[in-house]
Amino acid sequence: MEPIEFELNKEFRDRFQDALNERDGDFIRKSLEEVNPADITALLYEFSGEESKYVLDLLPLEIRSKIINDLDSDTRKTFLSHYTTQEITEVVNQLDSDDAADILNELPIKTSEEIIARLDAELKSQVIDLLRYDENVAGGLMAKELIKALDHWTVVQCVEEIRKQAEHVTKFYAVYVVDTTDKLLGRVSLQKLILSDPRTLVKDILDDDVEVVETYMEDREVAEIMSKYDLESVPVVNVQGQLVGRITIDDVVDVITEQAEEDRQLMSGITEDVEEDDSIWRNTRARLPWLFIGILGGMVSARFMGFFELEIAKITAIAFFIPLIQATGGNVGIQSSSLVVQSLVSPGFVDEGLWKRLLKVFSVALLNGIFLSLLVFGITWLVFGYDPLNMVVSMALFFVVVFASFIGTVTPLILNKMGFNPALASGPFITTTNDLLGLAIYFLTIHLFL
Amino acid sequence: MEPIEFELNKEFRDRFQDALNERDGDFIRKSLEEVNPADITALLYEFSGEESKYVLDLLPLEIRSKIINDLDSDTRKTFLSHYTTQEITEVVNQLDSDDAADILNELPIKTSEEIIARLDAELKSQVIDLLRYDENVAGGLMAKELIKALDHWTVVQCVEEIRKQAEHVTKFYAVYVVDTTDKLLGRVSLQKLILSDPRTLVKDILDDDVEVVETYMEDREVAEIMSKYDLESVPVVNVQGQLVGRITIDDVVDVITEQAEEDRQLMSGITEDVEEDDSIWRNTRARLPWLFIGILGGMVSARFMGFFELEIAKITAIAFFIPLIQATGGNVGIQSSSLVVQSLVSPGFVDEGLWKRLLKVFSVALLNGIFLSLLVFGITWLVFGYDPLNMVVSMALFFVVVFASFIGTVTPLILNKMGFNPALASGPFITTTNDLLGLAIYFLTIHLFL
Repeated sequence: MEPIEFELNKEFRDRFQDALNERDGDFIRKSLEEVNPADITALLYEFSGEESKYVLDLLPLEIRSKIINDLDSDTRKTFLSHYTTQEITEVVNQLDSDDAADILNELPIKTSEEIIARLDAELKSQVIDLLRYDENVAGGLMAKELIKALDHWTVVQCVEEIRKQAEHVTKFYAVYVVDTTDKLLGRVSLQKLILSDPRTLVKDILDDDVEVVETYMEDREVAEIMSKYDLESVPVVNVQGQLVGRITIDDVVDVITEQAEEDRQLMSGITEDVEEDDSIWRNTRARLPWLFIGILGGMVSARFMGFFELEIAKITAIAFFIPLIQATGGNVGIQSSSLVVQSLVSPGFVDEGLWKRLLKVFSVALLNGIFLSLLVFGITWLVFGYDPLNMVVSMALFFVVVFASFIGTVTPLILNKMGFNPALASGPFITTTNDLLGLAIYFLTIHLFL
Repeated sequence: MEPIEFELNKEFRDRFQDALNERDGDFIRKSLEEVNPADITALLYEFSGEESKYVLDLLPLEIRSKIINDLDSDTRKTFLSHYTTQEITEVVNQLDSDDAADILNELPIKTSEEIIARLDAELKSQVIDLLRYDENVAGGLMAKELIKALDHWTVVQCVEEIRKQAEHVTKFYAVYVVDTTDKLLGRVSLQKLILSDPRTLVKDILDDDVEVVETYMEDREVAEIMSKYDLESVPVVNVQGQLVGRITIDDVVDVITEQAEEDRQLMSGITEDVEEDDSIWRNTRARLPWLFIGILGGMVSARFMGFFELEIAKITAIAFFIPLIQATGGNVGIQSSSLVVQSLVSPGFVDEGLWKRLLKVFSVALLNGIFLSLLVFGITWLVFGYDPLNMVVSMALFFVVVFASFIGTVTPLILNKMGFNPALASGPFITTTNDLLGLAIYFLTIHLFL
């Protein structure tokens, strides 16, 4: 019983690469014998598709399937292109229905049809049922494998059913109880089953206070419910209340992790799901769209400042404070939108009403604005001496803080209402808007008061 | 069996508030009877501490404890200040050891000592053991409640032990098997236990290929391991390999969620763990530090541009392109740092070596730089006509993109090495640095080529 021992280090990687070059199957098989499939997956990311296929073909089918299942979707797509339809079918036949459906969804429709036709009968019907659902709803997350018991069964019958199903259902924490029309009545935990007299009727020990989700529920919502109620698995029912599948917490952990990653990418202006170790071209392409928009914003700024050419020519110092105004507007905007996004993400938030909320945002903005303007007024006085421009800069800064807070708060709310991911608003979107807004406010203030 | 029914709506909230004002205990008790404790928790966030206490005192001790346990740490701290030591002791006595330790950690040391002294004997010794660990290591996450079996026991003895422990251990998925010195040997899943002959020896059915974590492991690491290997619970061992506790997946879901929130806050320049519905003052205070730094950056920019007053006075248009240069530098920097942070967060990434990595970042930056400079050169030509300044702006932009990528890549790597959260680098930190850098490059280019 040792803590996780296997560490991918450069040394092992290099030795492994040598063995690969020499196609030294014995070494490879032996060195991977004791390694957890999840670690082999991580290792294979380092090698070419062909090399990885060579390694996998050396491993038992069960482990091979597990590893292919663990790959991220993009890698798997390229990877499976080295495989024949027959080979993929063998792999898919080893998987749980939800994982099988995920892989089939990634394949060209012709290939996936061919594979479905050749699957084992039970998996085939399960997969066909699952493929109806979008990936990002409960129906697309669920697996069909579960242990079902009728309410008039005894504990012994239940155990008998578990024995029968144990081959297909690798991980389960409870038996779901249904009536003869498949309507879900409740669940019996394994714990309860162990502790009950074998002749007890299932209906007498079932827990009917069970959280369920419906097939059409969004994955974000499912994740929220499971983490709110601390559930390790949740049954999925259709609109008729019939039990159609179950979702386990490990699928939801993936949803939460992916969501966090997606939010981070949106916040930093990256459009595609890209990773540092993707190709140079892909990395470039994922960055360009938001950079373009930033550039356009900059161009509009330049054009806009053109109207104030005379003012700037007269008092050059006007230009000095442009970075200050824009940076503050940008920072305030991002802070505001980020707090709104957080309140939209974390559950249990009762809408206080838009007006009350805006009033509060407005108060915070006023306070921040006053602090910062006074600060800037003080510093500029100390550094540049007294000048009417100090006054104007401080005043403009105050307005910029207030307006940027407002935009930062309202934009994610609007995006959310329109069905977009509100995290979009915490990225270059809000920065570009606030840059322009800040500039406009600054020059308007100059125009009015200088 | 209905999907989650209870929805916090304004109507219910208002009716509830009326009942609270009239101290209508009967209505409150009745309306909360069927409601899941997790939903009551969400509801209580809406009311004052005193009102919430009134509501909780109406509920059975078990539910009251569950709700207090569900509160977020900040709310609970203020909330428990309305409680006597005796009342808190009653609540803590109902909790699992890990939750009890969390609450005790939040209380003033004197109160917590008093409470520990009055706890039930078993919980008391468990809690004392847990309080030794930091909150953010495996030892601080784990609970002491688990089902332990000796390797020479039979399945029947095991079930007997489960029966004895079932009162204390509410949720478990496996029995951990130890030798007489408490050294962990493996685990037996409940599934296996149900399916095995009662006279089988535990050592014959145990699975010894179990992932374990050690007490000092960081919570981020535990989360990674559990999600990588899809574990619903993981045993915790000390350095001697003795079983000391277990961590369940729901604790880890909380770790992942908090981590994502923390990253998002760092990325948006918010220093304290603050939520939109915290007080106005707290919201202001959490925002000011990074805004100050932004302002200082802006001041340095202003001072710096002062050196180029003559140039700007001669060609006002120089000022026009400052926003363009700065925005692009900021955007590129954030994109780069965000990708690095992602690669640091997602496990299974083998370090390709710093130089190879920088070379790649450099290539992407070159490509982006060339695209964007050409674009800007084209647009400025079209919009403003040909001018030597166009050339200089495009050139400066190219250098800004390259340098900002470099800074954006290196900063999080350095922060990570120094033990800070690298997400810090995707926020105002990188923006401020890149603003200054961009300005310096721009004026240097002007100075050299115009």
